[in-house]
Amino acid sequence: MARLVVMYGTPKDPGAFDKYYFETHVPIAKQIPGLRKYEVSRGTVGTPAGASRFHLIATLHFDDIKAVQNAFASPQGQAAAADVAKFASGGVEMFFFDSAEI
Amino acid sequence: MARLVVMYGTPKDPGAFDKYYFETHVPIAKQIPGLRKYEVSRGTVGTPAGASRFHLIATLHFDDIKAVQNAFASPQGQAAAADVAKFASGGVEMFFFDSAEI
Repeated sequence: MARLVVMYGTPKDPGAFDKYYFETHVPIAKQIPGLRKYEVSRGTVGTPAGASRFHLIATLHFDDIKAVQNAFASPQGQAAAADVAKFASGGVEMFFFDSAEI
Repeated sequence: MARLVVMYGTPKDPGAFDKYYFETHVPIAKQIPGLRKYEVSRGTVGTPAGASRFHLIATLHFDDIKAVQNAFASPQGQAAAADVAKFASGGVEMFFFDSAEI
């Protein structure tokens, strides 16, 4: 199992972000080859000290790191990455890693 | 479903971190009430631009945000939080949120 965690900083207009994200970006991202599961945070992203600087965290599941690399290299992955620039006005950080249950 | 994502910055001694984390911290954290599943990154935490500033990302699964709040408030959760200070020499960030598959 591998995960791609996409962390979106709080955007200038959260309502517009959500509309674009769910209506436009998600359908594009769902075309990425090798994507097994797509999870998103709902509501506030909290920390032990209160609200975080992040508006939304998406977790995309793939079989392994090779599949994540193939996804980034694919035309569909490139399209999804290019689309991010259109709505991520609060910045975005992406992390990927192999994941194991312990 | 809710998630608690714990992101550990690269520590001074990664080998010592890993030994303490898996031998000491995980058994303490597994006592946290309401914990349904415990996942950890394996190997490098990457970004599209190369290696990230994080050494390890743990994802703890709970039923809902209330369960996460109860976990933090519990003696076992307090013990786990106190233990983190003993090995997280590269810093740590924690985020929790309700999560939905889309």
